[in-house]
Amino acid sequence: MKKHNFNSGPSILPQIVMQQAAEAIVEFNNSGLSILEIGHRTPFFTGVMEEARALVKELMQLDDSYDVLFLHGGATTQFMQIPMNLLDADETAAYCDDGVWGSKAIKEASLFGKALVVASSKDKGYTYINKGFTVPTTAKYLHITSNNTVEGTQYFTAPDVSVPLIADMSSDIFSRQMDFSKYSIIYAGAQKNMGAAGVNVLVVKKEILGKIKRPIPNIMDYQKHIEAGSLMNTPPVFAVYVALLTLKWIKASGGLAEMERSSIEKSSLLYSTIDSLPVFNCKIAVEDRSRMNAVFFLNDNTLEAPFLDLCKKEGMVGVKGYRTVGGVRVSMYNALPLESVVAFTDLMKSFAASI
Amino acid sequence: MKKHNFNSGPSILPQIVMQQAAEAIVEFNNSGLSILEIGHRTPFFTGVMEEARALVKELMQLDDSYDVLFLHGGATTQFMQIPMNLLDADETAAYCDDGVWGSKAIKEASLFGKALVVASSKDKGYTYINKGFTVPTTAKYLHITSNNTVEGTQYFTAPDVSVPLIADMSSDIFSRQMDFSKYSIIYAGAQKNMGAAGVNVLVVKKEILGKIKRPIPNIMDYQKHIEAGSLMNTPPVFAVYVALLTLKWIKASGGLAEMERSSIEKSSLLYSTIDSLPVFNCKIAVEDRSRMNAVFFLNDNTLEAPFLDLCKKEGMVGVKGYRTVGGVRVSMYNALPLESVVAFTDLMKSFAASI
Repeated sequence: MKKHNFNSGPSILPQIVMQQAAEAIVEFNNSGLSILEIGHRTPFFTGVMEEARALVKELMQLDDSYDVLFLHGGATTQFMQIPMNLLDADETAAYCDDGVWGSKAIKEASLFGKALVVASSKDKGYTYINKGFTVPTTAKYLHITSNNTVEGTQYFTAPDVSVPLIADMSSDIFSRQMDFSKYSIIYAGAQKNMGAAGVNVLVVKKEILGKIKRPIPNIMDYQKHIEAGSLMNTPPVFAVYVALLTLKWIKASGGLAEMERSSIEKSSLLYSTIDSLPVFNCKIAVEDRSRMNAVFFLNDNTLEAPFLDLCKKEGMVGVKGYRTVGGVRVSMYNALPLESVVAFTDLMKSFAASI
Repeated sequence: MKKHNFNSGPSILPQIVMQQAAEAIVEFNNSGLSILEIGHRTPFFTGVMEEARALVKELMQLDDSYDVLFLHGGATTQFMQIPMNLLDADETAAYCDDGVWGSKAIKEASLFGKALVVASSKDKGYTYINKGFTVPTTAKYLHITSNNTVEGTQYFTAPDVSVPLIADMSSDIFSRQMDFSKYSIIYAGAQKNMGAAGVNVLVVKKEILGKIKRPIPNIMDYQKHIEAGSLMNTPPVFAVYVALLTLKWIKASGGLAEMERSSIEKSSLLYSTIDSLPVFNCKIAVEDRSRMNAVFFLNDNTLEAPFLDLCKKEGMVGVKGYRTVGGVRVSMYNALPLESVVAFTDLMKSFAASI
């Protein structure tokens, strides 16, 4: 049976990427070797790394005041690494408490300096995005989570602030056009919209680095990684290669304009189906509903288990809500075809009609 | 032309591992999905993680006083993470300065507490292993590099010390039988003897944790990783899977006894060839010569380039010495077949005969 993969991450990748990745494991680029056994300082791999870094910048339309790093670890590592690089013990950084991941970032930052929560949507179970809050001009930076994978909210306008803006874009990177130059740091674990698990992309405006007194361990120091061309130590070779393949697929498919169009089409279909069927409800403020992760519930919660069972039976993978939230979560990343959302909404309709 | 892969890391993996890894990218375990798109909290992956952790313990014959973690990052991350977890600012840790990697570990440790160098072979270009040195009983631990990939030395006897012993075994893990219970922490980047780049294995005696005053960022805290069953955040799924495949291959091939027998056979052939041909010389103390990485030179250094050219022409990959050392380096990890060493030594002999 055909599976429809709505996993929240690691998640669906383009078929062509999977095929090229499998081929590279057998033999990489006529090298006579597998991608898993090539040296990371040979031209075979340094070419991959350089192309991937350049493509990130190209897709984001950023100039040379930015650098791009592929780092070990997921976004969770950045929760620590960002304040370690940017925040001295006697300084304050501003954070938006946007959900599960943002609150983890706040906890890690508080070990390095003062983490000031300037906006929180915790009062309403993280069902909306704060707007119009103010940030002290003395704050070293403002950190937001641009898309909340667990709760299903998304920023559609970047906060208008005078301090450097930092965004965890793990679950919506490369899913839409935006002015990326508004951000001083953009970071993302690769395993949702841009590759497999095991690598982190970090885009940094170089001028914000080198301004703290704290000594930084080499392996955590963004400046040292920039000097080393993102090859300070053995990188996660295969994960970087899969990211490159995915970035090339994005570009060849029409770039961020096409990713955005497709994502609007898919998410509109899903949300309009939810709203049209009284058996389902979505608690997220309409203007803040994520195009990546739709989180919704059955009005009669005794129907949740039968609905999830039906989904499983029909090959719909990964639609159970996050463990602390419950309900249903449908993730619609770049590689998810429209036909999967059509199949899912058809299933919702037939379930609604059957009860 | 057949390639002989002597890469120092990432390096050769067993053919069967490469084949199984490529298959898992097409479809993993009859899931209808690729290994790259499965959820890390589904039984598909939690089973992989548990089996890999258990196999590490089984191969090392360790009891439940130890735990096994698969962590993001390479060994370089551990240079920082170990003192962060074990060394308070007013405490001292003892380090052996065994080569390039050990000296990097010392630098990172000195940011967290006092890093005391108790032995160094720098005086003779890291061509031997120190023995019989003493370690203050007040030291929190002693750190050694059990095999020096760059310089070509290896410990054949663990230092006899009363403080907890920590070893970076990145380049000789699972290559021989030993009493692993002498160590309190063993760590290794996977990309030499146990898998692909992008994951780190850490074996830890639990009783040494939880004894410092410093607050540790969640993502760096070994105890938190143990509590989370090595699934605190999205792990490098594919790299963990390749490590599992490699561990299974080691076990099925006869375990550490067979890895050791094979490694003695391969390295003896190479070193005896070096010693028998006056054109080559190895500067490493005979009793400390690494079975993993043989580092040697041509007596007439104008012959180095022609020899390396010949190697390239004959499909011998990765035999150029490390950039700061020069000469020739031949890595003979677990997956390297004897026939590759035979082919290489035949080439050495014909080169010697030709000049």
